[in-house]
Amino acid sequence: MDTTEMLLETHVGSVAKLTMNRPGARNSLSLEMLECMFRAIQDLSVNSNIHVIILAANGPGFCAGHDLKELKMMRTQPDKGRTFYEETMDKCARLMQAIVTCPKPVIAQVHGIATAAGCQLVASCDLAIATDTARFATPGVNIGLFCSTPMVALSRNVGRKSSMKMLLTGDLISADEARAIGLINDIVPENRLAVETEALAQQIAGKAPTTLKIGKEAFYKQIEMTLSEAYHYTSEVMVTNMLESDAEEGIAAFIEKRTPNWQPLKGE
Amino acid sequence: MDTTEMLLETHVGSVAKLTMNRPGARNSLSLEMLECMFRAIQDLSVNSNIHVIILAANGPGFCAGHDLKELKMMRTQPDKGRTFYEETMDKCARLMQAIVTCPKPVIAQVHGIATAAGCQLVASCDLAIATDTARFATPGVNIGLFCSTPMVALSRNVGRKSSMKMLLTGDLISADEARAIGLINDIVPENRLAVETEALAQQIAGKAPTTLKIGKEAFYKQIEMTLSEAYHYTSEVMVTNMLESDAEEGIAAFIEKRTPNWQPLKGE
Amino acid sequence: MDTTEMLLETHVGSVAKLTMNRPGARNSLSLEMLECMFRAIQDLSVNSNIHVIILAANGPGFCAGHDLKELKMMRTQPDKGRTFYEETMDKCARLMQAIVTCPKPVIAQVHGIATAAGCQLVASCDLAIATDTARFATPGVNIGLFCSTPMVALSRNVGRKSSMKMLLTGDLISADEARAIGLINDIVPENRLAVETEALAQQIAGKAPTTLKIGKEAFYKQIEMTLSEAYHYTSEVMVTNMLESDAEEGIAAFIEKRTPNWQPLKGE
Repeated sequence: MDTTEMLLETHVGSVAKLTMNRPGARNSLSLEMLECMFRAIQDLSVNSNIHVIILAANGPGFCAGHDLKELKMMRTQPDKGRTFYEETMDKCARLMQAIVTCPKPVIAQVHGIATAAGCQLVASCDLAIATDTARFATPGVNIGLFCSTPMVALSRNVGRKSSMKMLLTGDLISADEARAIGLINDIVPENRLAVETEALAQQIAGKAPTTLKIGKEAFYKQIEMTLSEAYHYTSEVMVTNMLESDAEEGIAAFIEKRTPNWQPLKGE
Repeated sequence: MDTTEMLLETHVGSVAKLTMNRPGARNSLSLEMLECMFRAIQDLSVNSNIHVIILAANGPGFCAGHDLKELKMMRTQPDKGRTFYEETMDKCARLMQAIVTCPKPVIAQVHGIATAAGCQLVASCDLAIATDTARFATPGVNIGLFCSTPMVALSRNVGRKSSMKMLLTGDLISADEARAIGLINDIVPENRLAVETEALAQQIAGKAPTTLKIGKEAFYKQIEMTLSEAYHYTSEVMVTNMLESDAEEGIAAFIEKRTPNWQPLKGE
Repeated sequence: MDTTEMLLETHVGSVAKLTMNRPGARNSLSLEMLECMFRAIQDLSVNSNIHVIILAANGPGFCAGHDLKELKMMRTQPDKGRTFYEETMDKCARLMQAIVTCPKPVIAQVHGIATAAGCQLVASCDLAIATDTARFATPGVNIGLFCSTPMVALSRNVGRKSSMKMLLTGDLISADEARAIGLINDIVPENRLAVETEALAQQIAGKAPTTLKIGKEAFYKQIEMTLSEAYHYTSEVMVTNMLESDAEEGIAAFIEKRTPNWQPLKGE
């Protein structure tokens, strides 16, 4: 299969949209799909024309998690699938972390169901917008395979009691519940999903790309530090940022009440 | 006093219910009560017939925290109570951590008031259901004894501003507020409390007990790690889990659209 | 300018109110203002007559963050402002941490806008009350200067998705939204702001000041520890607290149903 069919990529201005395109398999994350998505995120991370990424999906839902048929099939291997499972889990963990370390904001555009590693994708993105009929779950517990990697992302977005309820029951939660517990930012009607997500992406893409890069990187670094370490680190980030030309231009434009002209991203 | 009277234990299928039974003392946590509860959790942790634990209470409320009369009485000791206080705080901290490290999910079934170490019990459980009239507080500040150990559990469930409000004012909050800030999962009418908690416990008890054990242990371990450590650790957990017979059975049953047959817990 | 005019200080009983008083500059945090606030917090930290601090503001809003005109002016320095920016960021980070390490609870009294480092002040306080028309933002991204230090405080109060939305869009959020995501505790009508904040401050000031000190210090220390470290540390805090005279008095008063007489704070 041509991997360009599995994951569609379109650009509008400086916003790239990646669309998972295995609707028949509910966009489940086969090893090939994981590799495809990882490579796309890696490429966009160093594409100086792109400032913001949208992660969307074709078909009835966003993503149903790992490809259970593929996982089951690999049990017939001499090692009972161990090598394949290790490769799959490694690639999946690398994809999720690539979203976090990508210097461009990544927005999940969610409709239908987002379950297991699909729910983990939503939790791993910086922002998430969903339709009012979207639903979320970490249902691994129902098939004897606890959602242990999805919970890494889930429990960093959502409180312990709500995380544990999802993980221990495997039950689907509504978009309203997902917003209330912090898993998603906003809910829109189904026919507004693409438009509203694009509008948010374009709004952010209008900021200085270097500033977005500095800020996103600093956010995920400082959040794992103690308070004093975090202030020590981010104070240095602020000084460096102040001395960049975008801050000079941005502050001048603000004081002069005009629109700033940002520097383009440096190629890497 | 017969400790079997202080803490009642009943089993329904693979669900154990521990019921605090010092209603006259508002189920306050005397040293004997703490020992009794600690031993019960320890025993249930290795009881292969039990998959889920409910922590409930008899009398007008859930639990009013430490036994202040007992603490006061010990001031007459030659060491002004120091040894007794050390033993009490140590045993209390061990009980709370035993709930967290117990391989079976523990659900708090809360009515009336849950205050100080009683509120800490609720925060320490994996899940919590309360009646619409339940109320919660960390009122130690009112008696010159800040709720310093309760806040360990509280602040890991609830945001800083809401935690601090409870700790600094000592005020009671409603069940609605407790749910909004993440201290409890669900609110039910008073006459439905036991039935709804039992239903949730039985739902979870229907999952593979080995999977629940793997998942709960991994949850509390990964939550204290950095993102990359957490993914490294849980990826290994997932591979090990995949190679367990429950995942083989669960995935096959899911694909074949039938009910899985889980392995019983191994005796320890 | 006389710094006593930049920051007003009034005492009512054991409650001190610091009022930022640069209304013409929207209380922006010039280096002099930062030094002034830092010194005031330091002094109040060791003032045994003061038990609780309110941080309020004169003029149309709470605080608009750093003084952009001052920052811009310093670009003409031979080092392009680096020394000044380092000093400003260092002083700002020290002020925010002084609020956290201050042994007295600090309550933000917020009206109008609280943006950038002004929003960080709100997030850094232990408690925050705002008017229903107050609004909050971290808009640095709009001027090419990401709110990297504000996000240290913001992301320790607010979930990741909501933090990132504020940081990446720079948009103002309402008081309702701020309360829903955990940035503030309560919302009051504009004409009730001072009265309600004072009432909360006086309520807390009626607790034993030594207990408040023990508790606040322990809160921010334990929150950065693992669960077992936190229990080890706070168990010791509890035993020490139990042996203080305030706990003896407070527990006795509670059992005897009378009002306790707290010890005054020791001078430092």
